[in-house]
Amino acid sequence: MATSLVSGPSEHLRPGNELGDSVIRVGVIGFGYWGPNIVRNFHGQDHSTVVAVCDKSPKSLQRVKNSFPGIHCTSECQELLTSPDIDLIAVVTPVWTHYELAKAALENGKHVFVEKPFTTNAAQAEELIELAERKHLKIMVDHTFLFTGAVKRIREFVDDGTLGKLYYYDSTRVNLGLFQHDVNVVWDLAPHDLSIMDYLIAEKPEAIVATGQGHLNGLANIAFLTLYYPNNVIGHINVNWLSPVKVRTTLIGGEKKMLVWNDIEVDEKIKLYDKGVQMAGNTEGVYQMLVSYRAGDMWAPKVEQVEALKLEASYFVDCILNNKTPFNDGHAGLRIVRMLEAADASLKLKGKIIQL
Amino acid sequence: MATSLVSGPSEHLRPGNELGDSVIRVGVIGFGYWGPNIVRNFHGQDHSTVVAVCDKSPKSLQRVKNSFPGIHCTSECQELLTSPDIDLIAVVTPVWTHYELAKAALENGKHVFVEKPFTTNAAQAEELIELAERKHLKIMVDHTFLFTGAVKRIREFVDDGTLGKLYYYDSTRVNLGLFQHDVNVVWDLAPHDLSIMDYLIAEKPEAIVATGQGHLNGLANIAFLTLYYPNNVIGHINVNWLSPVKVRTTLIGGEKKMLVWNDIEVDEKIKLYDKGVQMAGNTEGVYQMLVSYRAGDMWAPKVEQVEALKLEASYFVDCILNNKTPFNDGHAGLRIVRMLEAADASLKLKGKIIQL
Amino acid sequence: MATSLVSGPSEHLRPGNELGDSVIRVGVIGFGYWGPNIVRNFHGQDHSTVVAVCDKSPKSLQRVKNSFPGIHCTSECQELLTSPDIDLIAVVTPVWTHYELAKAALENGKHVFVEKPFTTNAAQAEELIELAERKHLKIMVDHTFLFTGAVKRIREFVDDGTLGKLYYYDSTRVNLGLFQHDVNVVWDLAPHDLSIMDYLIAEKPEAIVATGQGHLNGLANIAFLTLYYPNNVIGHINVNWLSPVKVRTTLIGGEKKMLVWNDIEVDEKIKLYDKGVQMAGNTEGVYQMLVSYRAGDMWAPKVEQVEALKLEASYFVDCILNNKTPFNDGHAGLRIVRMLEAADASLKLKGKIIQL
Amino acid sequence: MATSLVSGPSEHLRPGNELGDSVIRVGVIGFGYWGPNIVRNFHGQDHSTVVAVCDKSPKSLQRVKNSFPGIHCTSECQELLTSPDIDLIAVVTPVWTHYELAKAALENGKHVFVEKPFTTNAAQAEELIELAERKHLKIMVDHTFLFTGAVKRIREFVDDGTLGKLYYYDSTRVNLGLFQHDVNVVWDLAPHDLSIMDYLIAEKPEAIVATGQGHLNGLANIAFLTLYYPNNVIGHINVNWLSPVKVRTTLIGGEKKMLVWNDIEVDEKIKLYDKGVQMAGNTEGVYQMLVSYRAGDMWAPKVEQVEALKLEASYFVDCILNNKTPFNDGHAGLRIVRMLEAADASLKLKGKIIQL
Repeated sequence: MATSLVSGPSEHLRPGNELGDSVIRVGVIGFGYWGPNIVRNFHGQDHSTVVAVCDKSPKSLQRVKNSFPGIHCTSECQELLTSPDIDLIAVVTPVWTHYELAKAALENGKHVFVEKPFTTNAAQAEELIELAERKHLKIMVDHTFLFTGAVKRIREFVDDGTLGKLYYYDSTRVNLGLFQHDVNVVWDLAPHDLSIMDYLIAEKPEAIVATGQGHLNGLANIAFLTLYYPNNVIGHINVNWLSPVKVRTTLIGGEKKMLVWNDIEVDEKIKLYDKGVQMAGNTEGVYQMLVSYRAGDMWAPKVEQVEALKLEASYFVDCILNNKTPFNDGHAGLRIVRMLEAADASLKLKGKIIQL
Repeated sequence: MATSLVSGPSEHLRPGNELGDSVIRVGVIGFGYWGPNIVRNFHGQDHSTVVAVCDKSPKSLQRVKNSFPGIHCTSECQELLTSPDIDLIAVVTPVWTHYELAKAALENGKHVFVEKPFTTNAAQAEELIELAERKHLKIMVDHTFLFTGAVKRIREFVDDGTLGKLYYYDSTRVNLGLFQHDVNVVWDLAPHDLSIMDYLIAEKPEAIVATGQGHLNGLANIAFLTLYYPNNVIGHINVNWLSPVKVRTTLIGGEKKMLVWNDIEVDEKIKLYDKGVQMAGNTEGVYQMLVSYRAGDMWAPKVEQVEALKLEASYFVDCILNNKTPFNDGHAGLRIVRMLEAADASLKLKGKIIQL
Repeated sequence: MATSLVSGPSEHLRPGNELGDSVIRVGVIGFGYWGPNIVRNFHGQDHSTVVAVCDKSPKSLQRVKNSFPGIHCTSECQELLTSPDIDLIAVVTPVWTHYELAKAALENGKHVFVEKPFTTNAAQAEELIELAERKHLKIMVDHTFLFTGAVKRIREFVDDGTLGKLYYYDSTRVNLGLFQHDVNVVWDLAPHDLSIMDYLIAEKPEAIVATGQGHLNGLANIAFLTLYYPNNVIGHINVNWLSPVKVRTTLIGGEKKMLVWNDIEVDEKIKLYDKGVQMAGNTEGVYQMLVSYRAGDMWAPKVEQVEALKLEASYFVDCILNNKTPFNDGHAGLRIVRMLEAADASLKLKGKIIQL
Repeated sequence: MATSLVSGPSEHLRPGNELGDSVIRVGVIGFGYWGPNIVRNFHGQDHSTVVAVCDKSPKSLQRVKNSFPGIHCTSECQELLTSPDIDLIAVVTPVWTHYELAKAALENGKHVFVEKPFTTNAAQAEELIELAERKHLKIMVDHTFLFTGAVKRIREFVDDGTLGKLYYYDSTRVNLGLFQHDVNVVWDLAPHDLSIMDYLIAEKPEAIVATGQGHLNGLANIAFLTLYYPNNVIGHINVNWLSPVKVRTTLIGGEKKMLVWNDIEVDEKIKLYDKGVQMAGNTEGVYQMLVSYRAGDMWAPKVEQVEALKLEASYFVDCILNNKTPFNDGHAGLRIVRMLEAADASLKLKGKIIQL
């Protein structure tokens, strides 16, 4: 039987409580590269606090103790999964462990915040979604980019018609390393763009073509994904772990405006171009068609600078306390996993189109 | 029967003549966007001179007269094709006219300099090659980039082992327009990279996967090509006529060094990075493998600044006068046309792999 | 007595003629680095044509013949200065020759287009202005930058109040070479910014402080100018012939908006920032003063791309034909020469302030 | 009498102790913008630990408690200045308080680490230096930039002759804010470059010319400094609190090589250019002199990435423990203060040269 991890009163929070005094108690499993950010953003907030962190590495636990002296540390995740003092489990571990940990958390009545990609396959994701719904628990998949000022601003430009009918989304996301040992570059880097496209583009992709190559350990370290959407919208993602330079550039073409999002820029992340092309003239023959170009001003709107993960953590806590479904829930996570599975299948078959 | 276009003695040059006084007399068909550069670079050289230009547009011919008062102007290409005063025909017209014009030139005993892409299909290219060989005439396909200081320098880095074993070639070549009416963006922009890869990479591609989309006139205006090579080398080309910004960036990854070629930079077009990744450790399991990164100096070697087309024109004249086969001959042009045909076929089948 | 340089009718044009058939006949003295641009832009225009070019170098004259076969060439500038077939003399020679040539041209009844800087000292400029006025002739000093789309756009932002009260103009204009033998870097590069400031800033500078150093031939190759204006406006110019990189960047600070003009950019030469600082709070003590920052959108307005020199040439021809005084006339040239003289004096005295 | 701030044994460390177990106990006064970095870098090191922090603001003290739970907090600086448990006082307060606090620390037998600029005038600096020497205590002035990988690498290029004879150092250090209330932009931003020049250039400056202007609160918010050195070396610093963009670019010209240091770049902070100019030919007259340009490769050497302040803190601790004089000691701080005083004097007199 689980013992109490924390001193003090142990009122177990439930969705729907009054927001006033409610504090979601978070247990974080995994304190590697991303874990510290998760702890920092859930900890000491108005309505959430991190009560325990679990990691197998003594070194990682020592880092927890140094930075967050008040938080309980353990190398046994069962302690967290079964503790009555924890309302929410954040799963910040390698992807192949997500399913097992999230399932245990849900079974123990805890909400789940899980790193992207959600699971290693769609069946796992579906099972977790079903389990959470049955137990009236929330799942949020950490697609952090959806909470950045840049992506939110681009979404506005889509929604308010600034860009006009969408033509394409073309992203380059390359750098040197960090090599993952258990997943290829698609599973590591593409979820960012897949989730952003899922968020920005109203329609859902119909098919995926993926090509790529592995040069070192058998796993693809360079890959190119094409996503076919209805209405001639096309998506393309270029991911690469062996690039000498870091590039985070997305071109988005619309009928009315075009946009460049360079996430490496400190200021001016988004540049909106009043540029375009129009076909004019009669349609008697292609040679008679006239193309007219429009090249006007460029505009770099100010982008909100608040840390995305802080907004995301706060949003999830709000969803739990007020029984709302987050937009980046398990279903959203599942859609991305399905695209990743399709990309993997296509990659293995050297570009064979995989219907979604 | 053809009448003489130029005054003065009409000694018809033949390959193998002494270089001393030999001057190749050039007739240029097409004076649109690129024609003026062709004229300028063949004209007034030590061993070549442009004697006539043909274009259907009176406006274009007026431009010839303004800039090159001594050159004969005509709207009838037959005049050039049959003139005994012309040794070399430069075909600077839309691609669907290349075959017919080049064939007529060869049949009339003239060498041929032809714009890229060589022809609209491989059969045409093969016929022209066979005809030229039978008549002991030279064909050069204008893959200008192969004569730039940048590409020549990169070739040196391949040849002398600086880059080490090649991993990938990944090029982004996008901008707003210029829309072509008769070809899609692949035939317009990809020949540059295809010919550069043909020049840089020792092995030949085995298969092509192409995806893309057309948003305006039915022809693809955005496309993504993947080329599979032996030994895990992979090539990728991103071409787009609807980009708000002009990008001309190629990443080349090698085992020893990595390279970024940004052709838009005035200086520092090539940056060579002493960066890389190595797999180390035992091979008992993928999780135990250690990746070590190397991130050292960057070096931007000085790149020759001579106009590429000037070097190319001079090289072709030299090939004719000394009976040498240019490396960018009809066979090189044919290889590129075969890749374009494969890309088109794959594009139509939404990424179906096409073996070369 | 001067002989006719050109065949055909020799009607000498005079200001005020009907614009219909009037053509200003231009003689260009000097065909070095900038001369070809002058010839190209005055030649073959609707209302101007270049009839003769003079240069001491046979090589330069050969270049004229190659590019402009119809233009008379000579090495004797007297031919041009006294020819009845020339209405306007363009003086495109080293600065120390401007006075003598312009004076001769004016004395012979010809309008004068003269390179910047106008003359080597203010007395010469004053004499030329007086002479031109007496003879009802026009002088234009070639401050080409005033006709660029960028400078005209900035002027609009000043005039329409976009920038608000002006705070500073701070320009960096550095590159490697070209070393001038007869003038220091201030006389070579600073006239650009001095004329732009003269054009943009309503008030005139009150004093100049200049510092700098010469490292090779005794003439300053690096220099820094500060211009004090009324109302706390300050100007600063950094010029340098020994910079490894070319920089052409001007910061302009205003109360309402700030601007960066990067003339090396192909597109987006001007970036307008909605940024600023405001002092608020009580004035009881400096420590209580609150500074509030405003950091909003950035906007890169489209800038006209027409060649500046073409507009300038056409404008001068229009001024002559319609008897209008160009804004970049001798008086404007004189103001710049006075600033250069003051800068030189200050430079020699290591920053001693020189009142204007 | 001071009470012990910390529990546990109170062995007071003295210079010359064996390094083995020695730990310098640090008290930090001031926990505003820079203080947290000071605490973080002195705390938990092998040979130093922060035992107490003092700040007048309860909010700041709360931040200390959150981040460093074990450190004693107080709003009374006397507690730190007189505590027997403190060996070293770090003065991280506004410049006008440096003298008083450092003096009290020294009088109480404590070493002093003090923010730049050292003091508000030279007399104060001289008194502190004399006091420290009399009491055998160390002073280090926090010129952090001297411990960056970039500055250390540039120093190597100076020392090993890579750059050749130095021609100029020209720095632009501009951004929006942060406005200081007690000092002008010269005292805020120029110490960085002044200390870097002091470190890089063997000779000392002979005179300073400064110009500038204040637009808001009477204090200069934009200023330009020229430093005259022996042997025609010249220095220039452009500082500005009202720039819409952040610039941190320094050009360094040498006889053999030239260098651009862009501190905003994440990688490739330093670019070394094999570029230069040589005067050749006879010396009969300036017009006959030939200038030859050399424009070769560019090289961006890898630059050490360790946090500069960490190295600086560790270096000061080592100096104390081993009785060594830091190169950035009080004398170095005094030299910078003298330059700042001279700059201020020149600024007030609109560029009047001030001899050093």
